Amino acid sequence: MQQQISCVTLGIADLARSKRFYVDGFGWTPVFENPEIVFYQMNGLMLGTWLAKSLADDTYQATLPRPGGSNMAHNVATQDAVQPLLDRLAQHGGKILRNGDAPPHGGFRGYVADPDGHIWEIAFNPTWPISPEGYVTWGV
Amino acid sequence: MQQQISCVTLGIADLARSKRFYVDGFGWTPVFENPEIVFYQMNGLMLGTWLAKSLADDTYQATLPRPGGSNMAHNVATQDAVQPLLDRLAQHGGKILRNGDAPPHGGFRGYVADPDGHIWEIAFNPTWPISPEGYVTWGV
Repeated sequence: MQQQISCVTLGIADLARSKRFYVDGFGWTPVFENPEIVFYQMNGLMLGTWLAKSLADDTYQATLPRPGGSNMAHNVATQDAVQPLLDRLAQHGGKILRNGDAPPHGGFRGYVADPDGHIWEIAFNPTWPISPEGYVTWGV
Repeated sequence: MQQQISCVTLGIADLARSKRFYVDGFGWTPVFENPEIVFYQMNGLMLGTWLAKSLADDTYQATLPRPGGSNMAHNVATQDAVQPLLDRLAQHGGKILRNGDAPPHGGFRGYVADPDGHIWEIAFNPTWPISPEGYVTWGV
């Protein structure tokens, strides 16, 4: 299995307040933004800042820890690879939060929590190419 | 400022239980481990799984959110760059949790929380080289 984190997504309460920290503080430039989420292209992975309510809804969680609710994504090469990896992780101490299905923005994904409650999204996202080294870039 | 995450560190309760998920579930190989922490070399960054008590102590937090306490690191090129970035982030909505100082394992680091409470370590770590593209590798 490729040792790869495709995205770290942080739950936030206020996009403008968050952008002040990341854009004006760190000096980073978004690669994509809408009224719900901002993505930054990082070193071979994406950083997302997403309204915490939406992040909780998407992961089928009533609430996320405060402060600091977040998750990570591991992207796989095909849609068919999503559910088997969720199942395999569940067989090794993980807990499936959401079985694989298709989100509105395309692709395919499910969620599994590690034994300490850290949430991983296992995703097929055809718009984010992954290099042989595992570097993930914002695509079309 | 380089758009770079050097490390994602997850607070865990039990190393063996966590390794079952990451080593046997994901199939990943540690690059370093001791009785406190396991590091995995990922795609241009490190994934760390660290006893939650140690992670909380190091970040000067009485407790971390449960489930899911974690932090991220942004590494800089020199020791002198750590405190100015902590200060700059504090001027843009962040809250300094720990001013820059030297940890027992070497280097120099401080901690700042973003406006939503996500903890960032700002660190100089001479043993983890950073490529011009921002890819971070386990060093000597």
